Amino acid sequence: MDAVAAKRAAGEAAARLVEDGMTVGLGTGSTATWFVAAVGARVAAGLRVRGVATSVATEKLAAELGIELIVLGAEGLDLAIDGADAVDPDLRLIKGAGGAMVREKIVAAAARRFVVVVDDSKLCSRLGGIVPVEIIPFGAGATLAALETLGTRFAVRHGIDGIPLLSDNGHLLADGELPVIDDPEGMAERLAAIPGVVGHGLFLGMADLVIAGAADGSVRELRATPALS
Amino acid sequence: MDAVAAKRAAGEAAARLVEDGMTVGLGTGSTATWFVAAVGARVAAGLRVRGVATSVATEKLAAELGIELIVLGAEGLDLAIDGADAVDPDLRLIKGAGGAMVREKIVAAAARRFVVVVDDSKLCSRLGGIVPVEIIPFGAGATLAALETLGTRFAVRHGIDGIPLLSDNGHLLADGELPVIDDPEGMAERLAAIPGVVGHGLFLGMADLVIAGAADGSVRELRATPALS
Repeated sequence: MDAVAAKRAAGEAAARLVEDGMTVGLGTGSTATWFVAAVGARVAAGLRVRGVATSVATEKLAAELGIELIVLGAEGLDLAIDGADAVDPDLRLIKGAGGAMVREKIVAAAARRFVVVVDDSKLCSRLGGIVPVEIIPFGAGATLAALETLGTRFAVRHGIDGIPLLSDNGHLLADGELPVIDDPEGMAERLAAIPGVVGHGLFLGMADLVIAGAADGSVRELRATPALS
Repeated sequence: MDAVAAKRAAGEAAARLVEDGMTVGLGTGSTATWFVAAVGARVAAGLRVRGVATSVATEKLAAELGIELIVLGAEGLDLAIDGADAVDPDLRLIKGAGGAMVREKIVAAAARRFVVVVDDSKLCSRLGGIVPVEIIPFGAGATLAALETLGTRFAVRHGIDGIPLLSDNGHLLADGELPVIDDPEGMAERLAAIPGVVGHGLFLGMADLVIAGAADGSVRELRATPALS
């Protein structure tokens, strides 16, 4: 269970970034859950914080922990914390294994600071892997055919009961394997331009800081190197 | 009622493009309705055609007219016909005054030929006007704030009862006025990249033919000039 210790270390380190009075985006997934739990402990000890949950699952957890939940409005958020499935040296991310990436991206984009928490197995030298997309059920067959022109087959995600999974937004999720993404920005543009695609798992130019936990419970911080161009 | 004669002429001319056995995308709006009605008349006379409706409204109309409706799948469509709110000389369109642009774009993209029907008041020398977007209700305040960075305020569309209108996909609609869009392709990219934006009303590089009706009942056909680059 080394990954658990690593995830917990990253989540708890991120919780220390939360300051009294802040509005905070609460991520979804196994590492973000450690963050939410640690914030809940600080709230029980008197910290005042208002949160926006990135999923129905996180909303339930936060409510159980007594974290006040608010609606995400035009004023944005002070901070958002979330996990990732892959992180490259430029802090470009793949997210969405949990199916919550569209709400997660709305929250991350609305935050003045977006901090990513991962166990260090998620760090990679080149971005690649399963890229999830959220698609509108209407015309899904045609949208999947259009996605296939990107060079891989995207398959609709199903539950163990064989029924297609729906996102919290009521859309289908589909996964395509792109082992190496040579041009993440170009791929993001192409994904976003396909009619029927509501959102995708590439988070580019969004993360301000990555906190990577190790199995020994230590953490290290990665910051984006300023672009040369 | 000159516009009615012009819309009717365009819609009926487009119906003559439908061949026996075709699969056809059925557009939404006042001009596309003339097309659907004319196809219905041809179906009553024995034409075999299967249609995909771009909205619940068009679905009802097509069903009443006896047009067989199918699900849009990977095989795409032979032809799609729809209206537009503005058409520039490169056949770039603004659509979405009727709120159906996301399904309309999925259908148009899936068609091997996309033909646009308008009254000739929709033809413009430079693209501009009200650009509609469809946005996810979650975080809509933050999404609207992000849209405002494009240079105009986007306002959520409401019904006459004061309640926000929802698209057939269950999303909010918002309208922003962009009187002159200098770089439609760049604007489309920026719109599509905003988290929470499901789709937008710019249809670029999609129309193969525009049929513009005039008040005297005549029509003229516009084809895209090949790009120089």
